[in-house]
Amino acid sequence: MIVSNTGNYIPVFFYRKEIIMKNGIENGYYHEITPGGFGIAIKAGKVLFSDNSPFQKVEVFETESDLGRVLTLDDLMMTTEGDEYHYHEMIAHIPMMQHPCPKSVLVIGGGDGGTIREVMKHKTVERAVLCEIDGMVIDACKKYLPTISCQLDNPKVEILVQDAIEYMKDKKDEFDIVLIDSTDPMGPGEGLFTDEFYTNVKNSLKKGGIMVAQSESPFAQKESVQKMYKQLKKVFPTVATYTSNIPTYPGGYWAWAFCSTDVKPLEYYNEERAAEIIPTCKIYNKDYHNARFALPNYLKELL
Amino acid sequence: MIVSNTGNYIPVFFYRKEIIMKNGIENGYYHEITPGGFGIAIKAGKVLFSDNSPFQKVEVFETESDLGRVLTLDDLMMTTEGDEYHYHEMIAHIPMMQHPCPKSVLVIGGGDGGTIREVMKHKTVERAVLCEIDGMVIDACKKYLPTISCQLDNPKVEILVQDAIEYMKDKKDEFDIVLIDSTDPMGPGEGLFTDEFYTNVKNSLKKGGIMVAQSESPFAQKESVQKMYKQLKKVFPTVATYTSNIPTYPGGYWAWAFCSTDVKPLEYYNEERAAEIIPTCKIYNKDYHNARFALPNYLKELL
Repeated sequence: MIVSNTGNYIPVFFYRKEIIMKNGIENGYYHEITPGGFGIAIKAGKVLFSDNSPFQKVEVFETESDLGRVLTLDDLMMTTEGDEYHYHEMIAHIPMMQHPCPKSVLVIGGGDGGTIREVMKHKTVERAVLCEIDGMVIDACKKYLPTISCQLDNPKVEILVQDAIEYMKDKKDEFDIVLIDSTDPMGPGEGLFTDEFYTNVKNSLKKGGIMVAQSESPFAQKESVQKMYKQLKKVFPTVATYTSNIPTYPGGYWAWAFCSTDVKPLEYYNEERAAEIIPTCKIYNKDYHNARFALPNYLKELL
Repeated sequence: MIVSNTGNYIPVFFYRKEIIMKNGIENGYYHEITPGGFGIAIKAGKVLFSDNSPFQKVEVFETESDLGRVLTLDDLMMTTEGDEYHYHEMIAHIPMMQHPCPKSVLVIGGGDGGTIREVMKHKTVERAVLCEIDGMVIDACKKYLPTISCQLDNPKVEILVQDAIEYMKDKKDEFDIVLIDSTDPMGPGEGLFTDEFYTNVKNSLKKGGIMVAQSESPFAQKESVQKMYKQLKKVFPTVATYTSNIPTYPGGYWAWAFCSTDVKPLEYYNEERAAEIIPTCKIYNKDYHNARFALPNYLKELL
């Protein structure tokens, strides 16, 4: 047992040989350690918001790092001000540039608003629906992460605080692009990784429509990736994978599934919108876009 | 002050508000935190080797993680058994496949042997020189990281325990490929990041020769990257950049400089050796090779 000078016990996880690092902030550092025993550490600052919604623990904290403020859900890293564009530009522009005229877009999850912000850069968009189960995430991000949530008040954006599983049950021929910007396949995000749900998404797509879903870390979550692609392939004729660097996700590497009934990856590219949008991006450009679909051997074997 | 039940003081860095996480193993976890305040954490196991050479602290430890054993120098991550191929395949095959017949190869640094292992997959190689300043690194890796160091006893491999700055002073027209597999530009690696050294490397290259140097993390070490490329451009007519994922380097993303007097990147590709070598690789393939030179906007602006 270890006792501090104030007489308080120090949690046993600090004691060498019995250590299990918990995810979340402890002793000035935020940690997220994967089941594989490695992960990320960030010097944490003031906690700005921390509460339990009916679905999960929602927390926004300052960091004493180049990453700025951080959003975590159930103590798992969702996004940081300092690297959020790595994720949001990739989930949005890779499919959007491969559609000739995306007018109607659905984002499932994504309550921080970063994906919507990138979607709204496309002038063709007439209607963007954000279907997020947890209103607390939206409220916290509007208040504490304004550079990420800045387009949530755009009049073309319709915000539904609703379970996407319910919402998708009767959708037919409604969206050009569906982006699944979910948490991991545990907790509130779990039902978004089933073939039933993917079938409903497929039915919701118009002709030429594309679904992109975040599909976990190919290096750190190999089994999740494998399971998810197996299910996607049961539903969609085209299931491709693209990857990019996400500095604050374990392994630093992330995959997205590109799925469609009638579109194949890299068949079409909208040069006009690209010319407008690329100068606003920190990552995205046409060469980088094309390079995303080249996968390492170990990931090709997984899929 | 905090006192354990054995009467030992617990380091003050555990005490909230006064925490500065040190790099290295402490309380069961290895941490490497960049000056930017974020980094990696790995559940550490038994320390197999730890000693100070005349140049640096050399340590090999087990981890209780998917990463297996780890080599650190001055408490900075060098390589792990579990992800080393991400680095070694990229530093070696990207330039080697762009040379029609690499016979003579020099690796500077790289005492773990991983780069040499990949180089020796190319059957054209008649002579590979490893010039590593610190014999303790070579010895520790031969003993504790045999899957990485396994080609160091190949009779075609000449090992020089020597300062590469001295070694390179009089080299003319000797190597087809030079790979700078160094530590960061501080400590023993510092002199490998000067224009004088790069000029000596350029002189050591044969016609059609290529130098590749590890060039730090574009996300986590922006200033180092910028400074290094400025110097390289003073020396080499062609300076290109390629990047790939390294799970255990901060930011999960790494860059290499591709430099030559007379070769431009992606002009030539050796299909024959590729066909032999790709099946032995966990990352490397031709599509992935070509995609490496597509850079995110923020990195293009840095360079």
